[in-house]
Amino acid sequence: MTHVTRLFINATQVVTCAGPARGRRGVEQADAAVRDGVGVAVGADGRVVSVAPDGDLRAAHPGAELIDCAGGVLTPGFVDSHTHAIFGRARYEEQELRAAGVGYLEIARRGGGIHSSVRDLRTRSADDLVALARARLRRIAAHGTTTLEVKSGYGLSLESELTTLRVIRRLAADAPMRLVPTFLGAHEVPLEYREAPRDREEYIALVTGEMIPAVAAEGLARFCDVFCEPGVYTVSETRRILLAARAAGLALKLHADELENGAAAELAAELGATSADHLAAISEAGVAALAKAGTVATLLPGTMLFLGRPKQAPARALVAAGVPVALASDFNPGTSPTVNFPLVLTLGVSQLRLSVGEAFVAATVNGAAALGLAAEVGQLAPGFQADLALFDVRDHREIPYWYGDNRCLRTWLGGRPAHLG
Amino acid sequence: MTHVTRLFINATQVVTCAGPARGRRGVEQADAAVRDGVGVAVGADGRVVSVAPDGDLRAAHPGAELIDCAGGVLTPGFVDSHTHAIFGRARYEEQELRAAGVGYLEIARRGGGIHSSVRDLRTRSADDLVALARARLRRIAAHGTTTLEVKSGYGLSLESELTTLRVIRRLAADAPMRLVPTFLGAHEVPLEYREAPRDREEYIALVTGEMIPAVAAEGLARFCDVFCEPGVYTVSETRRILLAARAAGLALKLHADELENGAAAELAAELGATSADHLAAISEAGVAALAKAGTVATLLPGTMLFLGRPKQAPARALVAAGVPVALASDFNPGTSPTVNFPLVLTLGVSQLRLSVGEAFVAATVNGAAALGLAAEVGQLAPGFQADLALFDVRDHREIPYWYGDNRCLRTWLGGRPAHLG
Repeated sequence: MTHVTRLFINATQVVTCAGPARGRRGVEQADAAVRDGVGVAVGADGRVVSVAPDGDLRAAHPGAELIDCAGGVLTPGFVDSHTHAIFGRARYEEQELRAAGVGYLEIARRGGGIHSSVRDLRTRSADDLVALARARLRRIAAHGTTTLEVKSGYGLSLESELTTLRVIRRLAADAPMRLVPTFLGAHEVPLEYREAPRDREEYIALVTGEMIPAVAAEGLARFCDVFCEPGVYTVSETRRILLAARAAGLALKLHADELENGAAAELAAELGATSADHLAAISEAGVAALAKAGTVATLLPGTMLFLGRPKQAPARALVAAGVPVALASDFNPGTSPTVNFPLVLTLGVSQLRLSVGEAFVAATVNGAAALGLAAEVGQLAPGFQADLALFDVRDHREIPYWYGDNRCLRTWLGGRPAHLG
Repeated sequence: MTHVTRLFINATQVVTCAGPARGRRGVEQADAAVRDGVGVAVGADGRVVSVAPDGDLRAAHPGAELIDCAGGVLTPGFVDSHTHAIFGRARYEEQELRAAGVGYLEIARRGGGIHSSVRDLRTRSADDLVALARARLRRIAAHGTTTLEVKSGYGLSLESELTTLRVIRRLAADAPMRLVPTFLGAHEVPLEYREAPRDREEYIALVTGEMIPAVAAEGLARFCDVFCEPGVYTVSETRRILLAARAAGLALKLHADELENGAAAELAAELGATSADHLAAISEAGVAALAKAGTVATLLPGTMLFLGRPKQAPARALVAAGVPVALASDFNPGTSPTVNFPLVLTLGVSQLRLSVGEAFVAATVNGAAALGLAAEVGQLAPGFQADLALFDVRDHREIPYWYGDNRCLRTWLGGRPAHLG
């Protein structure tokens, strides 16, 4: 048995989210309920050894370091499986344009939106991008996130995409959470490939023929993602790009059916993608296809809120069909600049109509599944990484309830404090 | 001229919200724009003396204490004109009931909702209520609010209503913001007045005949509010209660047309109420009536979000009709447990489609107008209280943009640090 080095004690509740690694289920209430003195034992390898009454843990491991949870609630750290955290300037001016009725694609057509971040990012040094991202990661970690997917996609040139992914690799060395890199060279068709002599076909050839091989050769990304949406990449283009990525050894994600239905969820299922993300416009056939494929549906309710769009993804239909549902922040400068994951939980309940237990599982176990890490993180169960978040509440339901506040006190990675400095 | 004792310097922007005390307008962009070294001079009386370039202020007032804003953005502290901050336990279990499709009035019929908070509050001592509220006020202040309206309304008996208002008076002595007390004895008809031998008429007689005179005699409230809504108080009952309050010297507010239209906005206008609040179901006639009366429309977009209701108040129609629009948090344990006023600004833009400038005015100048304090607080202009909030951003538009985060660094009341201890 692993040597236990740390005991987390004096938590009012421990939300374990323990259960089958991939299935979407409610929190086991026996574990989530208020029990005096339930604690978590962590081994020298940084993994959970057991969850048991404090007294039992202290008797069994008398030499272990004690970490006092002071009556708070301990949860698995959040696994945020969809962000675009590497960017330059904030795009707050678009918020007002949208409020005045200018649409997402219209803002893009005017050279705003993603193109605006691309122009900006290409002018910045790697050091600058690292410094900007580091400050943001600190704020994200301070709200309870311990694993964060980060996409490229504001470079849209071989050099800028590689720079972005190398920035993520540099950040990963000392970030206050685990980082999972995703290559999103097909986030948009860059403006310079929209006028003769160059065209979108040429850009797609660049993505498949040069970017993906370079990313794979350097081991810079675990996933390849494509923004598959009417007006961005078609289903057929997306298929070609993702097949090239799969052949290069990358796992797959899709921005799918976000604003208009384009049967992108069906494509995600066809290709065996790990996740299909957004899905506010998914069809019934798309729901059925995801269920059959076992693809995780990653829902981003903050984005629809920030965009002021009335329609959210059909979370209950996805749950009813047996699709594993994950929640993510979509942290990005245009459509979801939030660092507050507990607020995403709130929206999971109030907008998507998940139960609180379902929202927790979506934010932990199923977020991990969306990153291919379902056996590693997202649960407080033996063998899982001891990635923990401690909240200043007495019941886990308070975490989504006090919406907009931040009750997270601290996080740990593998049982050690996540450094926010 | 007032002796200047403090200079707030090194702000990247100062959002003054200066202008006519009651009209609803955008921020003067000349004042909100990025200007190096704009500062605020505060007199010995705690009021703003001038807003001018730092260099001019330092030259004119060489002996003044300097407060370094470190490049942040300085705004008037938020004026949150609608809260129910005195309550006992959190009601997080209702969040899941709603997500499962149980309605607001159905939860009330089951003895949940307001009744649940009434049962709870009646068992608590004043000391307990003070301690609970104090912790919440600290969290509210930490997000930038410097004036807070607080209603009674979870007592619903002569004794418990007076206790609640006395708790607010005790809190006001050392709260980290200015408190404005409102009597809301007609928040609901308590359960003990729904069965023979007692009926709702008897409760209304208690409100008008005993509670209002006692509240007025003790000077415990500035406003009287009534929850005028189909299923709660009718327009005719509300009129009787508010006429009694007006006769006793209280100014008037109404919970009006929140979920279903009941012509409550028209009643607010007829009675010359200072504000009509909620208004998600206001009619065109109601909008016209408020415009004619000059009644402030206080909108609470967080409530509709937390309730998961798709319909928000018609903010643009109210603005177009010339109604002064205020934003407020509706902080309460059932339908809006948020302490994050910047998030309310976000919702003002994304859900109500206000411009950022309009949202700031709604959160300051018009919030003050909704409390009869339009000439006292809500602007950084000569003669106004130097109630300030400093944010760790470089542009005021970042405040609603980084939604769910808290960028507020500090607040001041009358130029002095708001104590959060």
